[in-house]
Amino acid sequence: MATMKDIADRLGISLGTVSKGLNDGKDISDELRKTILDTAVEMGYTNRKALKLERRKIALFVENMDYEEEYSFGYDIVMGFQKASFSEKWNFSVIPLTHDFQSKNKYDNWMLQEGYSGAFFIGLSLDDPWTEQLRTTTIPSVLLDNSIEQNPAVSFVGTDSSEGIEAAIKYLASLGHEKIAFLNGSAGSVISDNRMAAYLNSMARCKLTVDPNMAVYGYFVADCAPYHVPGFIDRGATAILCGNDLIASGVIKCCNEMGLKVPEDISVIGFDDIPLASKLTPALTTIRQSRTGIGKCAYFTLYSLINGVPISRSLLRPELIIRDSVSIAKPRVAVKRENDPDSVMFVNPELYAHFSRINMM
Amino acid sequence: MATMKDIADRLGISLGTVSKGLNDGKDISDELRKTILDTAVEMGYTNRKALKLERRKIALFVENMDYEEEYSFGYDIVMGFQKASFSEKWNFSVIPLTHDFQSKNKYDNWMLQEGYSGAFFIGLSLDDPWTEQLRTTTIPSVLLDNSIEQNPAVSFVGTDSSEGIEAAIKYLASLGHEKIAFLNGSAGSVISDNRMAAYLNSMARCKLTVDPNMAVYGYFVADCAPYHVPGFIDRGATAILCGNDLIASGVIKCCNEMGLKVPEDISVIGFDDIPLASKLTPALTTIRQSRTGIGKCAYFTLYSLINGVPISRSLLRPELIIRDSVSIAKPRVAVKRENDPDSVMFVNPELYAHFSRINMM
Repeated sequence: MATMKDIADRLGISLGTVSKGLNDGKDISDELRKTILDTAVEMGYTNRKALKLERRKIALFVENMDYEEEYSFGYDIVMGFQKASFSEKWNFSVIPLTHDFQSKNKYDNWMLQEGYSGAFFIGLSLDDPWTEQLRTTTIPSVLLDNSIEQNPAVSFVGTDSSEGIEAAIKYLASLGHEKIAFLNGSAGSVISDNRMAAYLNSMARCKLTVDPNMAVYGYFVADCAPYHVPGFIDRGATAILCGNDLIASGVIKCCNEMGLKVPEDISVIGFDDIPLASKLTPALTTIRQSRTGIGKCAYFTLYSLINGVPISRSLLRPELIIRDSVSIAKPRVAVKRENDPDSVMFVNPELYAHFSRINMM
Repeated sequence: MATMKDIADRLGISLGTVSKGLNDGKDISDELRKTILDTAVEMGYTNRKALKLERRKIALFVENMDYEEEYSFGYDIVMGFQKASFSEKWNFSVIPLTHDFQSKNKYDNWMLQEGYSGAFFIGLSLDDPWTEQLRTTTIPSVLLDNSIEQNPAVSFVGTDSSEGIEAAIKYLASLGHEKIAFLNGSAGSVISDNRMAAYLNSMARCKLTVDPNMAVYGYFVADCAPYHVPGFIDRGATAILCGNDLIASGVIKCCNEMGLKVPEDISVIGFDDIPLASKLTPALTTIRQSRTGIGKCAYFTLYSLINGVPISRSLLRPELIIRDSVSIAKPRVAVKRENDPDSVMFVNPELYAHFSRINMM
């Protein structure tokens, strides 16, 4: 581990100047300060004083996520992290992150200069300038729902999607559902890919057949529902699992517009349990991510990293919250379409009157 | 959360008697003590006094694993757990676990009676009496390499097999290996299944074809090598990845007996980095599990559970330790077998003299 003296020797400057550079002292040029910080990072210098109880600091960087209002997704995550770190005597700062800030500051240098021992990131995206720097950082860093491979200084925290989705599929199967569609979030996100794999595994474990046309990626917004729900209904889906609660709200609206009632005609399950979920009509059955728990888990994981324990991922247990949007599966019958007699769709026989475009076989 | 008074009311006895039952006091029958403990567990009673700094206790249960000698597999795990818990002021006990002890004591009752706030289990097997009880326990419990689904009081800790195996396969691919065999540990273990999935995924990511005859389960002992290695060689394997270091030691021995040199003729990679690995000839390249790190990670995870944060799994980063058992892939040529001219095997052309049973095509 490099000391301030090592840095002074490497640069041929005095110990006092190095100290000024590292501790934001006066009387040195910005250029020299930058050289000192770059050298400190390169040589693996850690500011041991920063770990003393009375001055130790950790950061929570937030980007692309609302967290200031009590009902916003990030609020409880921030609160959970703050509570866990505060009770262990850390000074804690929430720092909104912008592209511009990342472009102007190198991550390791900025953290060292400001005296932070580690950071938790929420909402960082893969094209952020600091994402690339996290591949090689030596600063203990925890990311929500994003993983950086092969760097022992960085951990992933998130919810165990597999367990949540398995609980949802088992619950639907226990109520007689066999044709369960999955309207996932956006393609290309780590979380969506995990959830798709979990859906496919859970269907297989319950010995249910997956129709590839009913396991699709949408977007993490309500408006993606109309593009997919009519196709699911045509293919006989009796239940639709959704990549998040917003998608589920869109699915319920879309079903209503098609003359289908939730849950009598079709069951819907969400993911997240945002405050909106319990306020929908019907109140949404959903897979809860404990956002307070994620914040606390992120703190414990970051504390492990700061103590030299290279955790690669910590996953929090989800919980299936049963409300009113699921009922037992209704039997469906195959009917021909009026405008395309060669094509078949499956409908609830009690409901065929709603489908003006079909004839019974 | 139930109090002592709730227990007293339920049983129609005095608070003092309940206290004696819970705190191992005298003057009450063993039968009444058992009733009090059973009722306390059933009502979800937690002994809050047990969490006071000066008396808080956690347990490490060990079964089926050596840990007392410095070179044994469990030693560093126990040390890591002890160091992390000791520095946070926990009283810590290592408790060797037997079937008999488990049959005679209920887990939750025993923990409550002895005043433990939580436990870490190493070496517990699926047919142990307490494994079933862990499905419904409310005592914070962490298991090494074993998972209990859907119980928020129980966590899994282990090494991230995917990352380790991916690093090994990428390393072999970078040296020109394409036919990479995997001799896994015993079928039916959680760990073996994870490692097989990781092997298949990593081969796919490196765009290498998997020969199903070269992705097999053996046992976690050296002696399983002779049953599989000759078949791998016949099929043209230039490298063999092993489910642990003991298997790798058997593979090296078996290759030597077949007249093949490691790494000149065939590369071998182990898993674990037990002390033996660096002492083999050649010194074994292997995927290191940090056993000290696992012990520390288990402590941080248990501490999270005790604080009400339901982590389902925490995975530690592995590290590829490069020693002398891997070299660049040697080209192979197809040759016919003498005793079965319709069958083809792939050999290193420099080595065909070792194979008396073949003719060059």
